[in-house]
Amino acid sequence: MKLVDTAAIAAAARRVEGAIVPTPLLPASSATGAQRLLLKPENLQPIGAFKLRGAVNAIRALERPRGVVAYSSGNHAQAVAAAARAAGIPAVIVIEDTAPRRKVDATAELGAEVVLTTAQDRTRTAERVTEERGYPLIPPFDHPEVIAGQGTIGLEIARALPEVAAVLVPISGGGLASGVGVAIKAHCPKALVYGVEPELAADARASLEAGRLVRWPRADRARTIADGLRSEPSELTFAHLRANLDGILTVTEDGIRAAVRELALAHRLVAEPSGAVSPAAYARHAHALPEGPVVAVVSGGNIDPALLTEILAAG
Amino acid sequence: MKLVDTAAIAAAARRVEGAIVPTPLLPASSATGAQRLLLKPENLQPIGAFKLRGAVNAIRALERPRGVVAYSSGNHAQAVAAAARAAGIPAVIVIEDTAPRRKVDATAELGAEVVLTTAQDRTRTAERVTEERGYPLIPPFDHPEVIAGQGTIGLEIARALPEVAAVLVPISGGGLASGVGVAIKAHCPKALVYGVEPELAADARASLEAGRLVRWPRADRARTIADGLRSEPSELTFAHLRANLDGILTVTEDGIRAAVRELALAHRLVAEPSGAVSPAAYARHAHALPEGPVVAVVSGGNIDPALLTEILAAG
Repeated sequence: MKLVDTAAIAAAARRVEGAIVPTPLLPASSATGAQRLLLKPENLQPIGAFKLRGAVNAIRALERPRGVVAYSSGNHAQAVAAAARAAGIPAVIVIEDTAPRRKVDATAELGAEVVLTTAQDRTRTAERVTEERGYPLIPPFDHPEVIAGQGTIGLEIARALPEVAAVLVPISGGGLASGVGVAIKAHCPKALVYGVEPELAADARASLEAGRLVRWPRADRARTIADGLRSEPSELTFAHLRANLDGILTVTEDGIRAAVRELALAHRLVAEPSGAVSPAAYARHAHALPEGPVVAVVSGGNIDPALLTEILAAG
Repeated sequence: MKLVDTAAIAAAARRVEGAIVPTPLLPASSATGAQRLLLKPENLQPIGAFKLRGAVNAIRALERPRGVVAYSSGNHAQAVAAAARAAGIPAVIVIEDTAPRRKVDATAELGAEVVLTTAQDRTRTAERVTEERGYPLIPPFDHPEVIAGQGTIGLEIARALPEVAAVLVPISGGGLASGVGVAIKAHCPKALVYGVEPELAADARASLEAGRLVRWPRADRARTIADGLRSEPSELTFAHLRANLDGILTVTEDGIRAAVRELALAHRLVAEPSGAVSPAAYARHAHALPEGPVVAVVSGGNIDPALLTEILAAG
């Protein structure tokens, strides 16, 4: 299987320039004065998540696109909607009818046409819309240009901090970890790259241990509060993870909540649970990480306001 | 009176490099697709506020410092403590005994020696400590190198967005607005620079209208929730404000709370009330601002957790 390479990521970096925010590395100060942990705040992208990078790159890599289709109930929906609007083409987003009203509205407000579907019919509906309109489908992770777009995060880390010792990235479908892994291993060969999963949705760890894709029942993966981390890797992303990851770190549900709270109060960043798992992994596993600076990617910040309030009030 | 010039700000930019985060400009997306407002998130500096820039610059501009003294119950205390620690010298911070325990602890955790005092004795205590230790005093705003340090924010804005049409900055003692005003007027002569004050602490507006420093009673200035905006300009900062500001925009207490909420939920940034006044001013006065991109400086994010929870829960 052909993996995404650094040339594709370098091309992606040129394509996304101006459309995404090159996020800074934020020293996560501690009382001891050690600046070991640095945060890469992708929650500060215009749609609140790293997904914008992959969506912009995939759309800009198309030749004369007339429109695009995506299916997602999460950040990918808003990413494709925003990227299509920036490109001046229509977007049709297929969303499950069980998705929160808030997410449907946010996607529509970005100018996309929303087609509601059931969970069972999701793929079929997306295929039908793709065929009817003649627009290509932009998948959330199973696509080389999406992976290359997410890889620009790794490229930014490597340029800003060539001495990085470890990078922590959340894994769901694996597009982010795939792209970041390629960039970091190529530009910082001594650095370790760890995927992060909730214990309750650690299917990628199971797959890496088994050496083949292991499927967890959807109901099992749905137990975690990190609702953005319930997808499973594809053959393409799994091949990237096998090639470039040094391991998987898992986090508990309490650890995720504590990290959301800490990010807001100590680092002034609003993160969604899925976006907070990398700092949570650092808090739990710092002793097992190599010496030197560690970068934790804070992948998104689209948290339900009631949940954020609840987590802050619980402290 | 000699004002800070662009050479001093350029020198400050070189001095603070590596110690501060060069913050990005974040497009504040709107449903209409207009990217008119951009946020400059200084709440993401390591101590949670822009004050680190001035403190680092003032300390690095000293010749062979053996230690420094500051008086502050706010972000300046932590800024000087952090900057002194980075320089490897002791810091003595004089704090009023009415300051929240949280702020005292945060300063001590940064390695500073904390000397508690009463509000009345604050200046005298600081002078006594300065004399006893033989350390220079780093004032919160009434100092050319502090102003030059804050001015690096304006320089970053001018470099990243030379076509900026207006810049909005909070005014308390006026150090931030002084430095940003010099940099913007020099590098982007067409851009307008507005100071922002709460209606309840609009003493700088009164002073600019009167053409001389007008003093508001401390009890009046203390009415606003924006506890970082209760200081008054000095002769030095007032001279800068007169030279470079195009006006003052005021905001209401409700507007400040709404902006804190909007920053957290729509832009994933935790801001303290004082840090949210510039976006609040944009929300209230956008129609009166010139056409083109507007930058609002989000100056700090050290909000009391209970207040943040209250504001989020009230929405």
